[in-house]
Amino acid sequence: MSVEKNAPATRMLAEIHEQPEVLARVLESGWGEARAAGRALRERGFRSVMLAARGTSDNAALYAKYLFETVLGVPTALASPSTFTLYEASMKLDDVLVVGISQSGESMDVLETVRRSRDLGALTLSVTNDEDSPMSAAADHHLHLHAGEEKSVAATKTYTAELLLLYLLVEALRGAETPAAEARDLPEKARTLLGSAWEGTARYRYADHVVVTSRGYNLPTAQEAALKLMETSYVVAQPFSEADLRHGPMAMVTRDFPVLAIVPPGKAESTMTGLVETLHERGAELVIVTDNEKTLERSAAGFHVPVSCAEELSPVLYAIPPQIFAHDLSVLKGLDPDSPRGLNKVTESW
Amino acid sequence: MSVEKNAPATRMLAEIHEQPEVLARVLESGWGEARAAGRALRERGFRSVMLAARGTSDNAALYAKYLFETVLGVPTALASPSTFTLYEASMKLDDVLVVGISQSGESMDVLETVRRSRDLGALTLSVTNDEDSPMSAAADHHLHLHAGEEKSVAATKTYTAELLLLYLLVEALRGAETPAAEARDLPEKARTLLGSAWEGTARYRYADHVVVTSRGYNLPTAQEAALKLMETSYVVAQPFSEADLRHGPMAMVTRDFPVLAIVPPGKAESTMTGLVETLHERGAELVIVTDNEKTLERSAAGFHVPVSCAEELSPVLYAIPPQIFAHDLSVLKGLDPDSPRGLNKVTESW
Repeated sequence: MSVEKNAPATRMLAEIHEQPEVLARVLESGWGEARAAGRALRERGFRSVMLAARGTSDNAALYAKYLFETVLGVPTALASPSTFTLYEASMKLDDVLVVGISQSGESMDVLETVRRSRDLGALTLSVTNDEDSPMSAAADHHLHLHAGEEKSVAATKTYTAELLLLYLLVEALRGAETPAAEARDLPEKARTLLGSAWEGTARYRYADHVVVTSRGYNLPTAQEAALKLMETSYVVAQPFSEADLRHGPMAMVTRDFPVLAIVPPGKAESTMTGLVETLHERGAELVIVTDNEKTLERSAAGFHVPVSCAEELSPVLYAIPPQIFAHDLSVLKGLDPDSPRGLNKVTESW
Repeated sequence: MSVEKNAPATRMLAEIHEQPEVLARVLESGWGEARAAGRALRERGFRSVMLAARGTSDNAALYAKYLFETVLGVPTALASPSTFTLYEASMKLDDVLVVGISQSGESMDVLETVRRSRDLGALTLSVTNDEDSPMSAAADHHLHLHAGEEKSVAATKTYTAELLLLYLLVEALRGAETPAAEARDLPEKARTLLGSAWEGTARYRYADHVVVTSRGYNLPTAQEAALKLMETSYVVAQPFSEADLRHGPMAMVTRDFPVLAIVPPGKAESTMTGLVETLHERGAELVIVTDNEKTLERSAAGFHVPVSCAEELSPVLYAIPPQIFAHDLSVLKGLDPDSPRGLNKVTESW
């Protein structure tokens, strides 16, 4: 169902399939802008980073935290917006880069976090899909997502655009002259991935809860997959890092308990395959997203990722199968993924 | 059931009821140690903080993040241990205070985070319940929880001890001469709270999932409540901040969906009572922990907190009703809260 590219039945599916073009646009237009911003940020200098976001963008922020710390060696925090909005903390931020990430650029508490941070002396950068949004104007520097208007309430193409643009920003900050070939290959790899068949969703028609797990760079992939499942299929979907799952929540995973495991390539792979073995022994009902055909044998229904990819860029590709899973499950359950109950596109709460 | 103080049927319940004594011990022995550590840390100086922990201790770390940022104005991050253990990032940590928190002092990835941070130039502090643990030795400074041996796999008394000790550390760091009266009153307030009746658990006998929500200082309370429910009752329990719940997961909360809402006193109260109204309108089945009797009217079963408390210390008291709820639900479901499936006391994974 998800591969009927010619006439996607939902806005969400149409936007999922736009991702190869969007990634190509981010590479084309975003790189120059990331380099210019990177140059300005390096000139001013910063000793730590604070990332402010909500929902899907907060998952992109967690990805950026791994990049800033691992690639640049800069300690990085995820902001607690209520520290700014509710408690009006007077933080010393004169050597801190504060990055606000919001698809709409209108998320009230993220906007307020950027504004107050700037007043407190922080260097500020905003990342939005709307160049005319209040958040673009509130920060010292701005990066545009180039994702095109996102009509679906469940964000898909803006998420992978955020991931790639934040990757390019970090590449620019470390002084790269040009994006790595691995990054330039992403649009084509995403196209290959979207062209491959996936038929396993029916098995989960009656699932009302699921645990989603991964490790390291792909922990955000697990978090975003859980959010998509909650938004579109009203499934109680809970994300855990491999270590946190073993620490306590493992107690609730018994025979037939559905677990979506993201098993990426690279340094996280061996701990994740170890976890898959433990879950398999407990009788869990595994959906696995991986490029490793041997690991797929442990799954009741698996997404084979038909392309290889560097670990630090794999979150861009590994985000896509869970989007399709969430979409297809929503349709199977007779729901409308484009109109989640009780949600608006912009979160106004703060 | 939970108030049969003379002969608690489980180790978990016995340890829940030890909390007034433990809090008194933390105040008595912990304050002097916190002042000494605070003096040493201020002499050396730091510009940001990174907190490393897993599971229950990670929830205490989130509480400390609010304190460090709001009371001290120091930007604070929660460490991603895999950045150290898996990716071996070479972070610049020469003006960072890294605090490792672990009940056992043996959590492998937290220990490794403290060790590597110290090698990378960070000032380090460990907080453990075992003075002879590897983590006590690995850090520049150490604080002891004074909670007594914790035999239950589900941590309760070490959690509230961590909260209070971290509060005392921040008080010491801001130069307080003596702990605020609000803090000194906690043991007696905890005793009053534990002496009050609670009979509403039976209603949730067949619940297999629940959302837990709060805001600000008590977001960690929601996270810890969810963890206890998962560990002891195998309920799929998912914590959200008020803002994050509104951002997407609200879609899955329909009529009869069980929600545990922590409605604390102070600045978070009005947004939380607003959320309670929204949830009530959606027909959610609310358990509410609050000192506000009017808010309690919205709940199907509520915990009335019979004492008043400053918001920044309320997480110590508000953690207790969810412990009792998780314990009683476990017993009601015919489970043994002392022997969760598939869990060990010390997490060795990393």
